[in-house]
Amino acid sequence: MTTIKENLVEMRRRFHRLPEVGFTEFITTYEIYKLLEQMDYKLYLGDDVLLRSARAGVPAKEKFTKSYERAINYGVPEDFLEYVKEGTTGVIATLDTGNPGPHFAARFDIDGLPITESEDEDHIPGEEQFISLHKGEMHACGHDGHITTGLFLADYINASKDSLKGKFTIIFQPAEENVRGAKSIVEKGWLDDVDYFFSGHVGIRNMPVGTVSAGTTDFLASSKFDVKFTGKSAHAGVEPDAGNNSLLAASSAALNLNAIARHGDGSTRINVGTMRAGSGRNVIADTAFMEIETRGETTELNHYMYEKAKTVIQAAADMYENEVEIIDMGEAPNAVCSDELITAVKQSVKNNQLITDLKDTLPLGASEDVTMMMERVLEKNGKATYMLFPFELKYGHHHPKFDLDESVLQVAVSTYIDIVNSLMKRD
Amino acid sequence: MTTIKENLVEMRRRFHRLPEVGFTEFITTYEIYKLLEQMDYKLYLGDDVLLRSARAGVPAKEKFTKSYERAINYGVPEDFLEYVKEGTTGVIATLDTGNPGPHFAARFDIDGLPITESEDEDHIPGEEQFISLHKGEMHACGHDGHITTGLFLADYINASKDSLKGKFTIIFQPAEENVRGAKSIVEKGWLDDVDYFFSGHVGIRNMPVGTVSAGTTDFLASSKFDVKFTGKSAHAGVEPDAGNNSLLAASSAALNLNAIARHGDGSTRINVGTMRAGSGRNVIADTAFMEIETRGETTELNHYMYEKAKTVIQAAADMYENEVEIIDMGEAPNAVCSDELITAVKQSVKNNQLITDLKDTLPLGASEDVTMMMERVLEKNGKATYMLFPFELKYGHHHPKFDLDESVLQVAVSTYIDIVNSLMKRD
Amino acid sequence: MTTIKENLVEMRRRFHRLPEVGFTEFITTYEIYKLLEQMDYKLYLGDDVLLRSARAGVPAKEKFTKSYERAINYGVPEDFLEYVKEGTTGVIATLDTGNPGPHFAARFDIDGLPITESEDEDHIPGEEQFISLHKGEMHACGHDGHITTGLFLADYINASKDSLKGKFTIIFQPAEENVRGAKSIVEKGWLDDVDYFFSGHVGIRNMPVGTVSAGTTDFLASSKFDVKFTGKSAHAGVEPDAGNNSLLAASSAALNLNAIARHGDGSTRINVGTMRAGSGRNVIADTAFMEIETRGETTELNHYMYEKAKTVIQAAADMYENEVEIIDMGEAPNAVCSDELITAVKQSVKNNQLITDLKDTLPLGASEDVTMMMERVLEKNGKATYMLFPFELKYGHHHPKFDLDESVLQVAVSTYIDIVNSLMKRD
Amino acid sequence: MTTIKENLVEMRRRFHRLPEVGFTEFITTYEIYKLLEQMDYKLYLGDDVLLRSARAGVPAKEKFTKSYERAINYGVPEDFLEYVKEGTTGVIATLDTGNPGPHFAARFDIDGLPITESEDEDHIPGEEQFISLHKGEMHACGHDGHITTGLFLADYINASKDSLKGKFTIIFQPAEENVRGAKSIVEKGWLDDVDYFFSGHVGIRNMPVGTVSAGTTDFLASSKFDVKFTGKSAHAGVEPDAGNNSLLAASSAALNLNAIARHGDGSTRINVGTMRAGSGRNVIADTAFMEIETRGETTELNHYMYEKAKTVIQAAADMYENEVEIIDMGEAPNAVCSDELITAVKQSVKNNQLITDLKDTLPLGASEDVTMMMERVLEKNGKATYMLFPFELKYGHHHPKFDLDESVLQVAVSTYIDIVNSLMKRD
Repeated sequence: MTTIKENLVEMRRRFHRLPEVGFTEFITTYEIYKLLEQMDYKLYLGDDVLLRSARAGVPAKEKFTKSYERAINYGVPEDFLEYVKEGTTGVIATLDTGNPGPHFAARFDIDGLPITESEDEDHIPGEEQFISLHKGEMHACGHDGHITTGLFLADYINASKDSLKGKFTIIFQPAEENVRGAKSIVEKGWLDDVDYFFSGHVGIRNMPVGTVSAGTTDFLASSKFDVKFTGKSAHAGVEPDAGNNSLLAASSAALNLNAIARHGDGSTRINVGTMRAGSGRNVIADTAFMEIETRGETTELNHYMYEKAKTVIQAAADMYENEVEIIDMGEAPNAVCSDELITAVKQSVKNNQLITDLKDTLPLGASEDVTMMMERVLEKNGKATYMLFPFELKYGHHHPKFDLDESVLQVAVSTYIDIVNSLMKRD
Repeated sequence: MTTIKENLVEMRRRFHRLPEVGFTEFITTYEIYKLLEQMDYKLYLGDDVLLRSARAGVPAKEKFTKSYERAINYGVPEDFLEYVKEGTTGVIATLDTGNPGPHFAARFDIDGLPITESEDEDHIPGEEQFISLHKGEMHACGHDGHITTGLFLADYINASKDSLKGKFTIIFQPAEENVRGAKSIVEKGWLDDVDYFFSGHVGIRNMPVGTVSAGTTDFLASSKFDVKFTGKSAHAGVEPDAGNNSLLAASSAALNLNAIARHGDGSTRINVGTMRAGSGRNVIADTAFMEIETRGETTELNHYMYEKAKTVIQAAADMYENEVEIIDMGEAPNAVCSDELITAVKQSVKNNQLITDLKDTLPLGASEDVTMMMERVLEKNGKATYMLFPFELKYGHHHPKFDLDESVLQVAVSTYIDIVNSLMKRD
Repeated sequence: MTTIKENLVEMRRRFHRLPEVGFTEFITTYEIYKLLEQMDYKLYLGDDVLLRSARAGVPAKEKFTKSYERAINYGVPEDFLEYVKEGTTGVIATLDTGNPGPHFAARFDIDGLPITESEDEDHIPGEEQFISLHKGEMHACGHDGHITTGLFLADYINASKDSLKGKFTIIFQPAEENVRGAKSIVEKGWLDDVDYFFSGHVGIRNMPVGTVSAGTTDFLASSKFDVKFTGKSAHAGVEPDAGNNSLLAASSAALNLNAIARHGDGSTRINVGTMRAGSGRNVIADTAFMEIETRGETTELNHYMYEKAKTVIQAAADMYENEVEIIDMGEAPNAVCSDELITAVKQSVKNNQLITDLKDTLPLGASEDVTMMMERVLEKNGKATYMLFPFELKYGHHHPKFDLDESVLQVAVSTYIDIVNSLMKRD
Repeated sequence: MTTIKENLVEMRRRFHRLPEVGFTEFITTYEIYKLLEQMDYKLYLGDDVLLRSARAGVPAKEKFTKSYERAINYGVPEDFLEYVKEGTTGVIATLDTGNPGPHFAARFDIDGLPITESEDEDHIPGEEQFISLHKGEMHACGHDGHITTGLFLADYINASKDSLKGKFTIIFQPAEENVRGAKSIVEKGWLDDVDYFFSGHVGIRNMPVGTVSAGTTDFLASSKFDVKFTGKSAHAGVEPDAGNNSLLAASSAALNLNAIARHGDGSTRINVGTMRAGSGRNVIADTAFMEIETRGETTELNHYMYEKAKTVIQAAADMYENEVEIIDMGEAPNAVCSDELITAVKQSVKNNQLITDLKDTLPLGASEDVTMMMERVLEKNGKATYMLFPFELKYGHHHPKFDLDESVLQVAVSTYIDIVNSLMKRD
C-alpha cells in the first residue's frame, strides 16, 4: 500500500515553493521526514546523518538564524529543529526486508540555490503559482524533482517490501551545490557496505523526455575554496607606500590563476567567480576576498589545478606583502560508473515504454559530489552508477528561469522502480 | 553682542556626536542654521546654496531615506528637511556692513566620513561620552572643528559689524570628502566677486598647537571616478568560453592602472580603492565595479593620470570584450595661495599670543575641493589662501581613533578674527 | 632493380649529419634529387613544387646566404642551387605506371630544427660519429628517418612499377616544423586528384618498435604568428611619461593571452614562446616582439583561440598606446583519417612479421601541416590517413638528445610497401 | 707653459671619433695618458686607479677581446694594454705643489654609449667628418667634452703650479653610464682626504651657452640590476603543464614592478628596460632575462624601490616555480652639493665674461655615480659640488643625433680655471 497522496507534479511543485540553500534545508528535511514517517523505514536525522566536521561551506550563523525563523513561521516544530538547526540537515531512511540479498542504496539531493526566481510571465512557476516563496532562493537545478523521485521510490519499496530482498538505504543529501555535503555522509560510513549504488540527475542534456542514460561520464573533479588576502591600509594620497595592497594582490592572483598552464592529459578549469576588495576610494585596500573553483577531467587533473592555484595565490600575497588564507569549501573527485551496473540498468528498463532512447552513458561535464559516495562504494567493492534523465531545456541549470519538464519525473521514478524490480526481487 | 552660548569645546563635541556623510548633513545643516538664525545674516539653503547638477558622488536614494528618518527622529522639522532632503545641504550666510569695503569670504566644510568610530578605551570621545551617535559615520577628519570655527567667526563678525566694512560671506559647504561639493557652490556663482577668500584645516601636520601656516602648498589635483564593466556570464565548468569575464577585465585594469608611468614633471597618484566583481563561484563574472582616484601635484599632472587611466580601462574592457562605463564622481584642481594674502595673514596675527610658530606655508600633500573655490576667486582677480592649524596627531586623519586636540580651536578662531580685524576694520 | 646502394641505417645517418631548417634544405633537396634521378620518376623542383606566396615563416635573407654558402662548400652545384636558393626547397617525384588505377600519394617531411645537438657521451650520434655537422641545426624530430623511408619507398615503387597500376606521387616536403610548408604545395594543386594519401611519423608514442597505428587522432589545429609592438622610447628617469612602453604592452598581452578562457568543447593551447623587448636599461622600451602559437583539438577550437588572441593583443597595444602588427607564420587545420584507409592499411599489413601490435589509431596530440594536404584530398573525395611508427623514446622529440631507434625504419618502409602491394598491384 | 697643442674643438672631435663603452676605454685611456705624460703629474693606471671587485656591470670577455683588438689596430702598445685590458681603465693624475694648502680634486668621466651614431645629413659630426669610427658606440652624452675639459684643466694647473698651493687630483673615470665605475675608485680611497671636490656636466638643461649653475639638485639615487629567471621547458602542445614558464614569470614581474606604489616622500622610478625570454614558438620558455633600474629622489626612496622590486621578482619566480637570480649592476646614491662650495664657485667666476647667467643650482633629474664620490668627500668632512654647463639641445642626451654646442667647452674650462685661481692661489 502506498502512503503518498499527492501526484508527482503536485509534490514537485510543493517543494519548488520551498527552496532552501545547502545546510539550511530545515523545512525540506521536515517535509521529507513527515512523508517517510508514514512508511516502515528506520529514519536518521542530524548527527546520525552526517559528520559535522566533514561538511564544507557551512553558512554563517546569521543565515541559520534567519532560516530557523522561517522554519518556525512555516510550522516546523521546535523539537524537530533541534536536530537540524546547526546545519545537520538531510534524512536517511533504511529498510531491511529480512530476506537475504544485496544492499541497495540511492541518493537524492535536496538543496536549492541562492538565486532569485524569475517573475517573467513566460516562466511557468510564476504563471501557475508555485514560484519560490523564499525570495533569493530557488530550486534552479531540479533538486525539487530529485526529492520527489526519491520519495516515490521510497514509497514503492515500502509498499513492495514483502516481495523484495536485501536491504535498502535512501539518502536525502543536503548541500550538493558547490559539492559540500556528500563527504559528511560518506565519512559517517553510510556507503561502506553498499552493493548497488544509484543516483542521477534530471535535465543536464538538452534532449527529448524519454532519453535515459544508464551511466554518466565526464564528471569533473572539483575543488572549491575561498581566499582572504590581508594587507595594510594607508592614505592613497599621502603615503601610498605605507600600504600593502590587497586589491592588487588579488588582481594579480586572478590573472595568473587563469594563466595556469593547460594540461596535456585532459581538460581543466579554473574560475575566480567573485572578488570583493577594499573599503574606500582613497584608501589602499587592506582586504580582498575571492571565491574560486578548480576542475579537472580527472581527480589528478583537478589536483594539478588546485596545487598550482595555491602556489599562485601564495606568491601573489608575497608580491604585495599580504597575509593570505585559503579556506577549502568543498570538493568532488572524478568517478567512473560500473560497467556491470550500466548493463544491469539497461536490462532492467528494457520493457519501460516511457524510455524512447536508452543510452549507455552521456557526459556530465560538470561536478557532482555524488562522486564522493561512488568512490567509497567502489573502494568497498560495491558497484555504482549515475543516470541522466534529460529533457528539453529552455534555460540552463542555475538560470532564474530554469524549469523542469515535469513529464521527466515519471521517467525517472519508473526507471528506479524497474531497477529495484530487476535487482532486488525476492526469488 | 555674541549670541552663541556654548564654548568651543562644547560645540565641537556636540557636532562630533552627529556626523553625517556628504550631502546627507541634514541635522548638521539644521543645527548650523539654528545658530546663524539668531544673528543678522541673510541665510541661504537648498537650491540657493548649490547647483544640483554640479554635485558629484551623490548618495543613493536609500541613504537619503535613512538619513531623513534619522533627522526626523532627531527632531529636525519636516519643513526644514524639504530644503535639504535631496542632498542640497549646507548653509551660506551673508552680511553687508553697509560700509564700502572689500568682499570677505570664508569656507568651512561640514561633512563626516563613512567610518565607524573606535570604542577603544583610550579614545577620548568614547571616554568622555561624545562618541558618534551615528554608527558607521564619524567626524574623523576634524570638520566638527571647522563647523565650530565657522560659527564662532560668524558670531564675532555679527557682533562687530558696526566697526567693520565691506561684505561677508560665510560658506558652510557639504561633501568635501572625496571632493564632491565645492564645485556645486562655485557653479552657483558664490565666489564670483570675492576679494579675500579664506579657508583652512586643523591638523594635517603633526606639530605642536600654536603652529600656524598662513598659506598652503602641495594641493594634489584629483579626479574621482567609478568604473562599471559589463561582460557576459557563463557556467564556468560547462562553457567558460561563452563568458566575457568582467573580473579579469577589472583585474587587468587594476594592475595596468597602477603601472601607468610616473611623470617627469612631478608627483602623481592612482588608487583603485575598491573592487566588487562577480556573482558566484561557478559563474564567469559578468560585472565588476571599481572606485578609482587619480591625483597629481598639478592640475596637468592629474589630467595626465586621468586620461591615461581612461585609456587603460577602455583597453581592459576591449581585452575581455566587456562594455565599460566611466562615471565621474568628483574633482579638484591644484591651487596656489596668493602671496599678498599670506603676507596679510602674517601681518594680521603678529600679536596673537596663541601662535608660537608662524610659517609662510606648509604642504598639504592631499586633495581639497576648496581649490575649486580658490581657482574661481583667482580667476576673478580676488585673492585666496588656505591656512593650516596643526596639532600633534596621535592617529592620522580618517583613522577610527582620529581625535582633535581641542586647544587648536582657539588658535583657529583667533586667527580668523585677527584677519577680519586687520583687513575689514572700518577706517 | 633497386638503385639505392646504402642500407636504411647508413642513409638515415647520412641525412642526420646534414640537418637544415625549413626552406633552407639546399643540401637535403640535392641529395634526395640525386638518388631519385637514378630512378624513372619525373622530378619537380623549385617553383614547380610549391607556391612561394603560400609559404609561411620564410627565413631572413641572411639565413639564406649562410645556407647557400654552406651548400656550395658541401658541393651542391650552383645551377642546382638556382632552383632552391630563395626557399623553394623540396622535391616531388611522379610516376605513371601506364596501367589504369588509382592515384597514390605519400608525403615525407625533410626539415631539421634550430637545436644544437647534444655532445653528451651517451648520445649515440656523437658516439658513433654521425652527429650534426651543422652547428645549431639538428634532426631532432626524426625527419631524417622520414626522408629515408620515402626514398626506399620510391625505390621499391620504381623497381616494381611493371607490376603496379595507377599513378604515384612522392612528396618530399620542406618546412614542416611550425607548420609552414604544406600549404604552399597544396596551393600548387599537387593534392587535387589524389585517391589515396599516406603519411606518418616515427616515434611520437613511447611504445615498443613493432607497434603501428593505421590512423591517427588528435591532430591539434594550430596557428603560428608573430607580434610586433611599436611604442615610443623615452628616458626612464627624466620623462618616463613620454614613452609608450612596448615591454609592458607585451607583458600584459602575454599574461592575458594565457588567461583566455578554456573552451567547453575541447582542448586548446596557447604559447608565447619568445619575447624580445627593449633596447636599454634606462630607456622606456619602444619595441617588443613575440612568437606565438595557438592550438585546438579542432579547427574551430583553434580559430577560437586565434581570434581571442588577436583581441587581447590589440587591446594590450591600445592599453600602452602602441602600434601592433600581427604576422601570420603558419597554420594547420585538424584532420580526420579515412576509416576506409585505416581498414585498408590493417588489411595490407596483416602478414607483416615486423608488426607486433597493430592499432586502428593512436593520438598525436600535436600539430602537423600534413593536415592541410589531408584536408585537400578529402575535399576532393580522396582518402587519407596518417600512420604512427612508435619506438621507445629516451628523450622527447625536439630534445637535444632525441634519437631514433633505427629498427623502426624497417617497420615503416615495410608498411608502406605492404600498402602499395595491397592497393596498387596490377590485377 | 702649456703642453697641449690642439684647441678645445680639435681635441673634442678627436675623442668624439673614438667612443668606447664603460671599462673598455683602452684607446681613450691611452690618449689621455699620453697627454698627461708630458706634464708633471704623477700618473696612476690599472689596479692603482680602481678596485676591480667594486666595479659593476663589467662587460663579457668577448667584448674585451674585441676592444683589445681594436686598440691594437689603433696603435695602443701591448704593454700599455696590460694595465687596462681586463677593464681597469681610467687615469688618475696627482700633483703636489709643495706649498701648504687644501686638496683639490676634479672628476671627468670618459666612457661612450652603445648607440650607433646617426649618419643623417644634418648631424654635424657626420657632415664635418668626426663621426664615431666605432660602429655601435658613440659619445652621445658629452663625455668627449668632459675629457677635453679635464685635460685643459690639467694643463692649466700644471702650467701654473708654481703660483698654486695645496694638492691636486684629477680623476678620469671610466664607466659612468649606468653608474658602474665611481664606486671602484671610491673604494680605492682616492676621495678620502679631499677638501674641495668638483665635477659637472655639459648640456642637461636646454639653455643658452653661458648659463652656469654652481651646484646641482635632484640627483636621482639609482640601482641597476639584471634578473635571470630559470624555469623548465616543455612542448607547448603535448604537455604545457610540464613547463615552468619563465616568460610568464618575467611578464608578471614586469607588470607588478611597474605597479609598486608611488611613495609619499618623493619621486621614484622603475624601468624594466629590456626582456629576452624563451627559445622557440612551440616551447614553454625556460629562461627570461631582464635589465632593470630603480631610482629615487633620495637614497632612501631608491632603496624603497629596490627592496620592493626584489620582493616582486622573487614572488613572480615563485608564482611560476622558477629559480631567479638578481645581479647588481651598479648604484648611485643621492647627494647634496655643499652650500660653501656653491658660494665659492659663484665668487670665483664673478668676472668671467663668458658666463651670462649664473645660477645657484639647477636640477639634474637623473642619476650620476659622481654622487658616490661626493658622498665620500662629505663623509670625510670635505666639500663637494657638481656644476652644470647647459647649451641648447637639439636632441636629448643618449639620442643618436645628440651633439655638443662646442662653445660650451670654453665656458666649462674657464669656470674650472677661475675656481682654481680663487681657491688654490698661493698667497
